[in-house]
Amino acid sequence: MSPKNIIQAMIPRGCEVIENTCGTAPGLAADLGGTPAFFLPGVPSEMKKMYELAVEPRLRQYLAGRAAAGVICSRTLHAFGIGESNIAQRLGEMMARGKNPVVNTTAAHGIISIRINARAENEGQARRLIEPVEAEVRRQLGEYVYGTDEETMASVVGGLLRQRGQKVALAESCTGGLAAKLLTDIPGSSDYFAYGWVVYGNQAKTALLQVAPESLSRFGAVSEPVAAEMAAHARKISGADYGLGITGIAGPGGGTDEKPVGLVYIGLASAENVDVRRLVFPGQREMVRMRAATAALNLLRLKLKI
Amino acid sequence: MSPKNIIQAMIPRGCEVIENTCGTAPGLAADLGGTPAFFLPGVPSEMKKMYELAVEPRLRQYLAGRAAAGVICSRTLHAFGIGESNIAQRLGEMMARGKNPVVNTTAAHGIISIRINARAENEGQARRLIEPVEAEVRRQLGEYVYGTDEETMASVVGGLLRQRGQKVALAESCTGGLAAKLLTDIPGSSDYFAYGWVVYGNQAKTALLQVAPESLSRFGAVSEPVAAEMAAHARKISGADYGLGITGIAGPGGGTDEKPVGLVYIGLASAENVDVRRLVFPGQREMVRMRAATAALNLLRLKLKI
Repeated sequence: MSPKNIIQAMIPRGCEVIENTCGTAPGLAADLGGTPAFFLPGVPSEMKKMYELAVEPRLRQYLAGRAAAGVICSRTLHAFGIGESNIAQRLGEMMARGKNPVVNTTAAHGIISIRINARAENEGQARRLIEPVEAEVRRQLGEYVYGTDEETMASVVGGLLRQRGQKVALAESCTGGLAAKLLTDIPGSSDYFAYGWVVYGNQAKTALLQVAPESLSRFGAVSEPVAAEMAAHARKISGADYGLGITGIAGPGGGTDEKPVGLVYIGLASAENVDVRRLVFPGQREMVRMRAATAALNLLRLKLKI
Repeated sequence: MSPKNIIQAMIPRGCEVIENTCGTAPGLAADLGGTPAFFLPGVPSEMKKMYELAVEPRLRQYLAGRAAAGVICSRTLHAFGIGESNIAQRLGEMMARGKNPVVNTTAAHGIISIRINARAENEGQARRLIEPVEAEVRRQLGEYVYGTDEETMASVVGGLLRQRGQKVALAESCTGGLAAKLLTDIPGSSDYFAYGWVVYGNQAKTALLQVAPESLSRFGAVSEPVAAEMAAHARKISGADYGLGITGIAGPGGGTDEKPVGLVYIGLASAENVDVRRLVFPGQREMVRMRAATAALNLLRLKLKI
């Protein structure tokens, strides 16, 4: 064994080893003059798992022993389809500094997360402080709020489909498989998602999803009729309850005055009808694609909540 | 206008405004006693673009003015299919601390990036220091090295397909659209990728890609014959030069002693034959999926380089 590896296997005196269930590098727990200290490997997936299994329980125990110092609890609500400044305006004084709970927002890929942090003597009290603030945030933002804490748009949509015993099929052009990837990030998603198409060329749209050549030549691949046909035929071929069709211009090339980069049509086919939305997203390729895929899932969420 | 927004529009005396071409918040450039300082908004995509357009040119100019202090240049090689410790062993003394150039590695999703940093009086000298080290790293790692600097596996595979005027079609099960997403992250990928399927259920595999029901019942969805049929039929239906089929167990559920979580079969169909690889990836769902998608693109890369 090389000296490097021997060093990795040595444990500082007085430290406790934290087991790494996903990798080889162990973690360490130490007591530094009454303050608990934890040392974890840098690989995020290993670090997160070890935090969950070994660090958080120890921290809870430590904090319970000094309850007088109080606890901070937080609740996060996730919103989509509304801007951060619009949210700030709606929440108004709730977001003022120095309040308890304090409310703030972060934005990523068009998703705005509203975090409510409460400080109290114990967890129960903190939760009671959060409750009315959460209710008021929900009242102000309505159906823009799609989930809480660890939930994602895909996990929420998946949960709604599972509850109803329904399925969705996906036909993607500009998102190129990203919407299917987001849905299948969730374990068990095969219960409600089985059929997906990435029809990245016009010929593929016609050959696999029976999009009419006339629709393509007359309206273009990025158009309301093509989104509608993609959604309707994805639903029909798969036998799913819903079909989503996504076609747009992700950029950086391909934009015109009439059809700019960021223009996306999303079709949602159900037993009743086919609904198509025209959306224009800001930002570069990655952001347009992420927002388009999220908006498609959000459209289905709103349909399922009715 | 609210006082908050007025504050955002104010510029500290002596600062120069850096234009934000992707958003509304401007950046600032200042000279703090001879040291250039830059203030950019926190949204990564805006910050990166502004760095590229406005900060880097200013930094280069600043550094050119004080060439005596020297420059640091770096070159990064990306490798896949080989572990970090194996690379460390092959590179040996090249990775010792305190050398110039200094060589180190980082790992993410099975991709190991080897960074060569050289310090010299000017860029030309630094590049000349890097050259022989890069050549030796390439000699030691051979075809494991797939790209350099900003290149990704998808951009490299796409470049090779474009050079040859060839196309690939994708049939994905466990990766659920991720491989297609990676390919279409690259602008212009429609030149070589048009047809993708996400066959996340057995029925979809049979209905869309003509996978034989007997293959599914006799060998299971995660098997060599099913990966081969997915690849071959994706190629046949699309008329593409290559077909990739990916089927595996991403976890956390679905694993058995015989077929553990992380087991993935990748089929590559070409005009000559269908080649299937059996791989077992460590880690959790997200990592298994990312490695499986990358490994599929890598298999095609190695085929195209022959």
